[in-house]
Amino acid sequence: MLYLVGLGLADETDITVKGLEIVKKAERVYLEAYTSILLVDTTKLETFYGRPIIVADREMVESDSDAILHEAHVKDIAFLVVGDPFGATTHTDLILRARELSIPVETVPNASILSAIGTTGLQLYNFGQTVSMVFFLDNWKPSSFYDRIKENASIGLHTLVLLDIKVKEQSLENMARGRKIYEPPRYMTVAQCAAQMLETEETRQEGVYHEDSLAVGVARVGARDQRIVVGTLKELTEVDVGKPLHSLVLLGRRTHDLERDYIRVFAVDEKTFDQSYEKYYGKTY
Amino acid sequence: MLYLVGLGLADETDITVKGLEIVKKAERVYLEAYTSILLVDTTKLETFYGRPIIVADREMVESDSDAILHEAHVKDIAFLVVGDPFGATTHTDLILRARELSIPVETVPNASILSAIGTTGLQLYNFGQTVSMVFFLDNWKPSSFYDRIKENASIGLHTLVLLDIKVKEQSLENMARGRKIYEPPRYMTVAQCAAQMLETEETRQEGVYHEDSLAVGVARVGARDQRIVVGTLKELTEVDVGKPLHSLVLLGRRTHDLERDYIRVFAVDEKTFDQSYEKYYGKTY
Repeated sequence: MLYLVGLGLADETDITVKGLEIVKKAERVYLEAYTSILLVDTTKLETFYGRPIIVADREMVESDSDAILHEAHVKDIAFLVVGDPFGATTHTDLILRARELSIPVETVPNASILSAIGTTGLQLYNFGQTVSMVFFLDNWKPSSFYDRIKENASIGLHTLVLLDIKVKEQSLENMARGRKIYEPPRYMTVAQCAAQMLETEETRQEGVYHEDSLAVGVARVGARDQRIVVGTLKELTEVDVGKPLHSLVLLGRRTHDLERDYIRVFAVDEKTFDQSYEKYYGKTY
Repeated sequence: MLYLVGLGLADETDITVKGLEIVKKAERVYLEAYTSILLVDTTKLETFYGRPIIVADREMVESDSDAILHEAHVKDIAFLVVGDPFGATTHTDLILRARELSIPVETVPNASILSAIGTTGLQLYNFGQTVSMVFFLDNWKPSSFYDRIKENASIGLHTLVLLDIKVKEQSLENMARGRKIYEPPRYMTVAQCAAQMLETEETRQEGVYHEDSLAVGVARVGARDQRIVVGTLKELTEVDVGKPLHSLVLLGRRTHDLERDYIRVFAVDEKTFDQSYEKYYGKTY
């Protein structure tokens, strides 16, 4: 049996009791470690589970999935995924391969940023499609996120923006030379995301949002030191919410007054918050 | 401290290790039992937690929240919520009241149907806003869900439809006479939802979806006997996916071929599936 086990968002105790039982008795335990991270080290997980963990990078999962599935007909394999196994990144390829090999698959759900973002007090019913923001390069600034936000904004919905992480990436030079030397990990911040959003609006000029549009920045959702900060996009380009992982929500104009009441205490500046709110939000036309 | 603890979706072992530790040491343990249900009895939870549970109905949570918060300044109170505490139903009122009373609040996230629906193989990135479907009455058939689906459909997105549950409801007569006699619980089925959707299309005639539009019905997501069934809305009016809880996803036209490949094995009839798919989906115009 292949078990896809969600680990939740913050630390080793966010695994479910069901998930932990599976990990403890599995023959091999893999940790998918390239699309998201927990806020604790792998060694801490190993100690907590009482099991060794095989860290599975993108190369292994995408090119060598048969190694992961080896003997899964007769043995239990646990494949651990930060968040929910079907959350922001799904592993449908791995499951489709298991199906081809007639290996049964079971999933253990857990918290995903896509639902845990509700901790901001914003109603999940009011969210449109989720988008991703990648690190811009000088010559590569993809703006497809802008089109998606435009669609959400056109019907007044919030947009959750998931921020890029770069783990075990090679520089172009090292890749070209076939050197397996990896860059230090990088995690996009709320401030970087807000800045890239404004840069894109500046370029596209379609008025999807503005410097004084309101957004909610979050860090370390689900952890004890979780942070929520609310401000205009301009203000958010200046905030520092600390260690990763960060996400951002751009408010839709249909924001409900109850949502406003809930998030206002997190405002960088209540005065600019009230001004922007009055200008753009709480409207359902 | 007030702890809002998510229980996940299926049984007593879906609580996280962190959540379980909190429940075991809390002074009082409440279970919110009117917006969703686990698939096991409260007594099973009590045995597993080794703690008595106070079942909190809507009346208690909405009208008597101070009883729940009693002494929460100095004692730990656990308020258990099926799914994620900020999932389909949020308890912002309770938290706002705690804030007024200067009671600290901590949340333990867990799986929510809003992210666990990814188990269908449909990409969460491709979902628009979530809608709710209530039981129609002869003289009350609210169709606001139809407007929301129309918005999602206009940009090609999937729609998750959450289905009504009626727990501890009084008949109009018993309510009028002040008799605290409650009707047996009722849970909407995938078939009832599909039928109400078609009835609404029949009335509204805006072509938002059709009898041969494709949808995915799910039952008991996260449980060992989870069911997924895919068919046209017409076909789904005839399916029986067994015990509650059920949900439904209406496919958006932007369905990706990888999503198609994943869900096709769940089709009631692969022939009608292929016909409808060819007709409406996989299109990104």
